[in-house]
Amino acid sequence: MTTLKIIKIGGNIIDNDAALSSFLEVFAAIKSPKILIHGGGKLASQLANQLGLEVKMIDGRRITDKATLELITMVYAGKINKNIVAQLQSKNCNAIGFSGADGNTIVSKKRAIKPIDYGFVGDINTVNTQTLQILLQHNVVPIFCALTHDKKGQLLNTNADTIASELAIGFADQYQTELYYCFEKNGVLRDVTDENSVINTITTHTYQQLIDKKIIVEGMLPKLNNCIHAIEKNVHKVCIGKPEMLVDSKANFTTIIK
Amino acid sequence: MTTLKIIKIGGNIIDNDAALSSFLEVFAAIKSPKILIHGGGKLASQLANQLGLEVKMIDGRRITDKATLELITMVYAGKINKNIVAQLQSKNCNAIGFSGADGNTIVSKKRAIKPIDYGFVGDINTVNTQTLQILLQHNVVPIFCALTHDKKGQLLNTNADTIASELAIGFADQYQTELYYCFEKNGVLRDVTDENSVINTITTHTYQQLIDKKIIVEGMLPKLNNCIHAIEKNVHKVCIGKPEMLVDSKANFTTIIK
Repeated sequence: MTTLKIIKIGGNIIDNDAALSSFLEVFAAIKSPKILIHGGGKLASQLANQLGLEVKMIDGRRITDKATLELITMVYAGKINKNIVAQLQSKNCNAIGFSGADGNTIVSKKRAIKPIDYGFVGDINTVNTQTLQILLQHNVVPIFCALTHDKKGQLLNTNADTIASELAIGFADQYQTELYYCFEKNGVLRDVTDENSVINTITTHTYQQLIDKKIIVEGMLPKLNNCIHAIEKNVHKVCIGKPEMLVDSKANFTTIIK
Repeated sequence: MTTLKIIKIGGNIIDNDAALSSFLEVFAAIKSPKILIHGGGKLASQLANQLGLEVKMIDGRRITDKATLELITMVYAGKINKNIVAQLQSKNCNAIGFSGADGNTIVSKKRAIKPIDYGFVGDINTVNTQTLQILLQHNVVPIFCALTHDKKGQLLNTNADTIASELAIGFADQYQTELYYCFEKNGVLRDVTDENSVINTITTHTYQQLIDKKIIVEGMLPKLNNCIHAIEKNVHKVCIGKPEMLVDSKANFTTIIK
């Protein structure tokens, strides 16, 4: 089977012009079929401040009211997505921007309003790969922002990590899918204060031990749950680390396998 | 040859939720391959006001400085485009949003800064139909906002009427292309104060007479120049009128033919 690389980048790259440009150089050079998913970074909060919109958070999670949804639609699908597409085109990578509404690629369901009403937040129901598959076969490169829709006309804010893992799962019967989470650390660390304590390999078996020993805690837990879920659903491998892992065979990063 | 309908809507539809929704109902029901191009409406100016950005105009034309380009990228490619796509998906029309950067579909050149520096405004050089053609063959419906790119990483603000006519010209050797400009009047009027004075047919021949007699003046002149240019470049026909012309065979509108 052909390899499909699905790569997610977060705020640390989006918010830094030089980091983004150098990442896109690496991404454009990847020869296999590929899909990029990008988060939103600080730009949405900056614009919210400029507009005098209150940023509402519960338990560290943004509440997406109507005004916030409009704002992130502008920032994620407009400013960030189109600038990434234009930059990739300049590097001869034939990118097309996507939200989950485009091509009906990702259908989600608005989250129940109890116990907490997160507003216009969607949890993914279905990934439709047909249109994406046609584009991939013609060397077109889909670039996803973190928005989906409910197929009833409503856009929904959706976690970018989850979009990446669900896309990887959706393609697992057509490609050997590899999922890459690029972030600011070298990988999953045994000791969060030591960048050199990268755990090179995690399996579905050792994962539980790392949780039991409280080595995987807090912020890493939802991210790794996504990874393990993907592996269990036949994604070939999941890698977590700095973008260097995409090109440097000697780079230190974490690989999650079955 | 199969018919391809290329339809442009402007601010009068974009700015009115009910008008937009009813237009999209009509658009979704069109059976032939189709492409929609939308303008920006008042939303960009409203957001500019909220952000305290000065709207600079020369001779009635917006100057697109860096901040304005960012703003229209958010409004046109983000808010308006994605909401149209989500609404069309709810009407079982498999829409995908496009700027000219997506799929490298429309490459333009930044306008010369003399005699007037319009800023980040692009005049179209090339339309690449290949990716669009693949999508059209799979019943996917491209939805264009009024942005193009220079293939060097720069997005550019581009007139939506021109995008529509250049797309129609680009497809003229593959489809029998029909170009529809939807606006607030019944068509080109013999007497601007009389909505019933619609000129039903204009040919490349009668066009010059209408200019000489000063029946076509001011705002209609650049619009009609686009139309005549399209007809000369083998677009099958161009229609100007209210959206009703798309469905109502008895509607009054203007058709431009060779």
